[in-house]
Amino acid sequence: MKVDGKPYRSIWLADDGWSVEIIDQTKLPHTFEIATLRSLDDAASAISTMQVRGAPLIGATAAYGVCLALREDASDEALDRARDALIATRPTAVNLRWALDQIAHAVRNLPRDTRLRAAYARAAEICDQDVETCRAIGEQGLALIKQHAARKNGEPVNVLTHCNAGWLATVDWGTATSPIYQAHNAGIPVQVWVDETRPRNQGAALTAFELGHEGVPHTIVVDNAGGHLMQKGEVDLCIVGTDRTAANGDVANKIGTYLKALAAHDNGVPFYVALPHSTIDWTLDSGFEIPIEQRDPQEITHMTGRLDDGKVVTVEIAAPGSPAANFAFDVTPARLVTGLITERGICEASRDGLLSLYPEHAES
Amino acid sequence: MKVDGKPYRSIWLADDGWSVEIIDQTKLPHTFEIATLRSLDDAASAISTMQVRGAPLIGATAAYGVCLALREDASDEALDRARDALIATRPTAVNLRWALDQIAHAVRNLPRDTRLRAAYARAAEICDQDVETCRAIGEQGLALIKQHAARKNGEPVNVLTHCNAGWLATVDWGTATSPIYQAHNAGIPVQVWVDETRPRNQGAALTAFELGHEGVPHTIVVDNAGGHLMQKGEVDLCIVGTDRTAANGDVANKIGTYLKALAAHDNGVPFYVALPHSTIDWTLDSGFEIPIEQRDPQEITHMTGRLDDGKVVTVEIAAPGSPAANFAFDVTPARLVTGLITERGICEASRDGLLSLYPEHAES
Repeated sequence: MKVDGKPYRSIWLADDGWSVEIIDQTKLPHTFEIATLRSLDDAASAISTMQVRGAPLIGATAAYGVCLALREDASDEALDRARDALIATRPTAVNLRWALDQIAHAVRNLPRDTRLRAAYARAAEICDQDVETCRAIGEQGLALIKQHAARKNGEPVNVLTHCNAGWLATVDWGTATSPIYQAHNAGIPVQVWVDETRPRNQGAALTAFELGHEGVPHTIVVDNAGGHLMQKGEVDLCIVGTDRTAANGDVANKIGTYLKALAAHDNGVPFYVALPHSTIDWTLDSGFEIPIEQRDPQEITHMTGRLDDGKVVTVEIAAPGSPAANFAFDVTPARLVTGLITERGICEASRDGLLSLYPEHAES
Repeated sequence: MKVDGKPYRSIWLADDGWSVEIIDQTKLPHTFEIATLRSLDDAASAISTMQVRGAPLIGATAAYGVCLALREDASDEALDRARDALIATRPTAVNLRWALDQIAHAVRNLPRDTRLRAAYARAAEICDQDVETCRAIGEQGLALIKQHAARKNGEPVNVLTHCNAGWLATVDWGTATSPIYQAHNAGIPVQVWVDETRPRNQGAALTAFELGHEGVPHTIVVDNAGGHLMQKGEVDLCIVGTDRTAANGDVANKIGTYLKALAAHDNGVPFYVALPHSTIDWTLDSGFEIPIEQRDPQEITHMTGRLDDGKVVTVEIAAPGSPAANFAFDVTPARLVTGLITERGICEASRDGLLSLYPEHAES
C-alpha cells in the first residue's frame, strides 16, 4: 500500500540481493525509516523489539532470518539454532512457527550448497503468498461490507477495528483492513473507528497512519470508547485480526479485543475476525491454552511522541513509583465471534466451521 | 488522605478566610501544585479545565464558586448568573446542579448582607457532608471486601477500579476507593488493579498517585487488560464511581466503564458502583437520557509527561493529521451492576433498590 503516494510492502529484499529491508515500525508515526537486516540477530531483534510486528509479518521476517543465518552457516545445526532463536522472540503468534517450519521443510533435505538459494526462494514465496492471502481475505470481507452498504443509503459503513491488522502487520493489504481497502477502492463509502490500542498505540500510530496515506476516512478513539459507540448505533461491524486461532474458533488477539467482542455481542453488532490459514493452530482445542506474552511495564508507564519542533521524545506518564503489568494479548471465545474471514471464505468460529474451509485438517 | 505523609483534602478555604485552595489535578502526577480560586471565573475555569474533577468535587467547587461570585455582587441576578456559568462547565455530572441548588436554597430568602456568610457556611457544610458521606460509603463497601477476604486465606483481595473515584474526585476518602482505604487501614490485604483510563489517564495519574501515597498495593494496567484479568480469575470484585445515576440504576461513568461491566458479567465477577446520594438523578428513568460530554480530541492525540530531567512536556502521539473523537462518559445499564454502594447501604441497581434506601424520593 502507499506511503506519501509511493507503493510499499512491509518487508522486501534489498538491492544487494541478500539483505532484507523493513519499515521500522517503532519509529512510526513520527518518522518513516527503513531498517536493514543483515544477520539472524538483526532479524530476531527486529521481531522482539517490534520493529516488525503482526503475526504474518513476524512469520515473513523469521523466514528471512533463517536465510540470513544460512548465509553464515548452512549446517543442520545452524538451521536448528536459527529456529530456536527466532521462536523465542514472541510466544503468542503461531505464524512464526509456521514460517520456520516452511523454511526448514524447503531446505532440510538439500545439499548444503543449494540450501541458501532454496531458503531465499521459499521466503520470497511466503511473502508473495501472504500478499495473495490477504488480498483474498479482503475479497471475502468486501462482500460483507457491500451487504452493509446496501442498507446504509449512501451513508458510510462504520467499521471498528482494534490494533493494527493492517498492511504493516502483514506483507501487504493487511487482514482486517484488506476488506476496508478493497471497499474504499471500489468506491463504497467506509468510515473506520480506529481503537488507539494501548499500550503500544498500534491503532493511533499505525492503522491511522495507513488509512490516512490511503485516503480512507477514519477517526481515532480511545480503547474505552467502542462500547459507547456501539450502544449509539455508530458501528455497523467490527473487523479485527488475530495472532493465533485455536481449532475451536477462539482467537488470541491484541489485549482488549475480548472487551470489544463483548460489546458487539451485547449490542447485536457483527464481530468478524480476519485471518490467514497460517494463524490457525490446529493442535489447540481451546484459545485459553495459548500462552499470553507479558511485556515491559515501561510500555505502559512511558509514551513516545513528537514535540512541537518535531523532536521525538519519551516521557513518563504514570504516577512515579507505581508498578504496572503489561499483558499483550487476550483470548476472545468463539461464542462472541460472528464469523472468521479467511482467504478461502467466511466460516463460523468453530472446529466444524474451520474444517468446512480446510478439510485437509480433518483427523482421519 | 495523605500526600508525602501530610493529610490533605482536595479543596479547602485559604488562610485569608475567603479564597479557595485546590490541588491542581492537571499537574498530577508530575508535580503537586496548589491553586487558588479568587473569583467565579476561577472556579468555572477550574472545573472546565479539570483542575478539579470528579462529580462530588465538582459540586463542592461549584458551591464555593457561588460564594466567590456573591462576594462581588450578592443580588439574585448575580446568583442566577453564577449558577448559569457553573452549570455550563460540565454537562454529565449531576452533583454540580445539586450543589448549586443547595447553595441557592441556603441564600435565596436571606437579606443580601447575610447571604455571603450563609453561602460560605453551606459550602463548608457540603464539603464536610461529602467527607462523611464518603466515609460511610467506605464502611458499607468494607463489609463487601471483608466477605471476599474471608475466602482468600490471607491472599490479597483484588479490586479493579476504573478512572479516579478516589479522594481527589471527592473532598476526602473517595467513593470507589473509600472501601479500599478502609480495608487497608483495617489490615485487610488488598491489591488494586488500576485502569489507566484513557484519554486523561486519571487512573495511572491520580488513582495510582493516591494509592501510592497511602501505601496501598496496586498495579496499573491499560484499559484493555481488565477482561483478560477477569478471565484469569485475577479480579475478585470491581468498584467504580459514577457521575450520574439514573433512577432505574443505570450509571454514567468514565468512558470504558461499560466494557468492564460487560467483562465482569461474563466472568461472574461482582461489579459495584459506589455513589453518594447527590449523584442520583431522580428525574431520569434511563441512563441513556444522560447527556454525554464530548471533549477536545487533543486529549487523545497528545499526551503530557515527564522527561528524564523532570521537565513536563506535551507530545503528539497519533498519526499526523488523523482526526479523533473524544467521548468522556458511557452508560452502564443497571442489569450489569451487582449493587450500588451508597452512604446508607448497598442496594440493587433498580428504582426499587434505590427507593429502599431513599424512601423520601418515592412518588406519592
